[in-house]
Amino acid sequence: MKGKILVTGGTGYIGSHSTVELQNAGYEVVIIDNLSNSNIEVLDGIERITGVRPTFVQADCTDIEALRKLFQDNPGIKGIIHFAASKAVGESVQKPLLYYRNNLLSLINLLTLMPEFGVEGIVFSSSCTVYGQPDVLPVDETAPIKPALSPYGNTKQISEEIIKDTLHANAPFKSIILRYFNPIGAHPSAEIGELPNGVPQNLIPYLTQTAIGIRKELSVFGDDYNTPDGSCIRDYINVVDLAKAHVIAMNRMLEKKSPEAIEIFNLGTGRGVSVLELINAFEKATGVKVPHKIVGRREGDIEQVWANPAKANKVLGWTAETGIEDTLASAWKWQLKLRERGIM
Amino acid sequence: MKGKILVTGGTGYIGSHSTVELQNAGYEVVIIDNLSNSNIEVLDGIERITGVRPTFVQADCTDIEALRKLFQDNPGIKGIIHFAASKAVGESVQKPLLYYRNNLLSLINLLTLMPEFGVEGIVFSSSCTVYGQPDVLPVDETAPIKPALSPYGNTKQISEEIIKDTLHANAPFKSIILRYFNPIGAHPSAEIGELPNGVPQNLIPYLTQTAIGIRKELSVFGDDYNTPDGSCIRDYINVVDLAKAHVIAMNRMLEKKSPEAIEIFNLGTGRGVSVLELINAFEKATGVKVPHKIVGRREGDIEQVWANPAKANKVLGWTAETGIEDTLASAWKWQLKLRERGIM
Repeated sequence: MKGKILVTGGTGYIGSHSTVELQNAGYEVVIIDNLSNSNIEVLDGIERITGVRPTFVQADCTDIEALRKLFQDNPGIKGIIHFAASKAVGESVQKPLLYYRNNLLSLINLLTLMPEFGVEGIVFSSSCTVYGQPDVLPVDETAPIKPALSPYGNTKQISEEIIKDTLHANAPFKSIILRYFNPIGAHPSAEIGELPNGVPQNLIPYLTQTAIGIRKELSVFGDDYNTPDGSCIRDYINVVDLAKAHVIAMNRMLEKKSPEAIEIFNLGTGRGVSVLELINAFEKATGVKVPHKIVGRREGDIEQVWANPAKANKVLGWTAETGIEDTLASAWKWQLKLRERGIM
Repeated sequence: MKGKILVTGGTGYIGSHSTVELQNAGYEVVIIDNLSNSNIEVLDGIERITGVRPTFVQADCTDIEALRKLFQDNPGIKGIIHFAASKAVGESVQKPLLYYRNNLLSLINLLTLMPEFGVEGIVFSSSCTVYGQPDVLPVDETAPIKPALSPYGNTKQISEEIIKDTLHANAPFKSIILRYFNPIGAHPSAEIGELPNGVPQNLIPYLTQTAIGIRKELSVFGDDYNTPDGSCIRDYINVVDLAKAHVIAMNRMLEKKSPEAIEIFNLGTGRGVSVLELINAFEKATGVKVPHKIVGRREGDIEQVWANPAKANKVLGWTAETGIEDTLASAWKWQLKLRERGIM
């Protein structure tokens, strides 16, 4: 065993895939999740893939006493990967206090307890949303932080500031901040994948639910952007590739290879794909048509953004390896599995 | 009685002066304070000035259940003035998590409970620190927010954002954000004043403690700034004038005179005074010499900042009335009273 890692939000989308990769790499995983936006059966999926059922604690990271008890009951946690957060942009505009409380207090609690329990490092889930609409594309980690367009986005920016200020005050641990672009797809086994509650806020689950007939039509928000086909451009990254980057980041911190107390990495493919291109790629990969229509722009959407992942490529030795069609095929396989199991 | 107001941090410096002015104006005051940086005897001073002892609850605003109990035990609170916060810039650099937790969670808790208890408005203590070094002087409320130079300053910026986002989500109350410049002086009765724990972080208590012989020498941080005499320039505002602005702001919200859900006002005199000018003015006002020496610049100090208070003058009908010498004399009278009482 390489050591014990606490994965907050570990039954969520990226959290579950990262738990699988951590266990595959020899880490022992303790998950904390309040199950507010995920399902306990995700643990079965993780166990079917890896043969190991992670330790699970149902609790909320905003509850510092519950967190303290977790550390006491699970001694020797060496690292934390902090995924637990409220993540729906639109909901954050409607319920800002929920987002500020959940996302900031969870992080503050974890950082507060780390020295007490000798935790050596924390990987934090940030987002390309901190760049807003970048002035230069592809965007690298030195690009300026733009004013947040939503309370959700603001909590990511503020969280980065809290971590930086904490490390600046000589906290006895390290941190790696990972700025994700757009994670999509599912584990190739289709044992775990993205399973949002209610109407999906993200493109791919909406797309696969449309392809399978749960949704009538996929809305493409705007075809009059200043892009080659007029639709928005994103950097879609395979969730398993993303999960593997977390393992590398954790190794790096625990093996003391990071020269700085805090490091920031973009996690993206370096390729921009438009929404219309993505639909085409899905149809090509799966042979399934996706009914879609062009509708008006959606407030708060960035026109185009994709990563310069050179720093992660070089420093972490990590590259997003999976092609877009394989990734989309994995998302479709997952959707079919959900149907097969009678879940959706 | 005009109604019941909750004053958080009401035994602190600005909180106690505002409690006096609220009571003078006919409001009933409930104070919540954790006494982490103030003394219970402040209530005696308030009572000696106004004849009324405010209701006092010793609790921490980060404890939402304690706050809920306060609202239950004191039904009918119509407005909140939220002073409670950790406020030492230097300490915030050393203990950032303490500042983020105290300052953000207190505000989030109050905003969360306001609808539940029908509270109609909240006045928030912000600071000119949000402007950083302004590009244009005097600085008005439309000036851009600059990156924070400390976790303390960051909590003020973030708090403003949290309030704005909350009101934007149609919260059923109003808010007025007051950006203070540099509050100094004491109540003319010398029954209440500024009484920091330990070595003062602010200029005036250090100056009066030096004048009375508690401190050997006042350090002036830098005389090579791009100002007429080379020392930093600030806008020093009388604390009683400042307190009166809070009463006007509360009246405005409760009488539904504010057309916007959220309003922001600078509270300053509109006059910039250098540190060396301030020392001279103190000596002139009191006849007491202040031993001082020029030392190097202090990290994070802004060169010069003073307010354009035109919006508060016009919209609130409020002006900082007290002259700098009267204000400094009140600070000295307070220092003498502390000596007389054997406190310092």
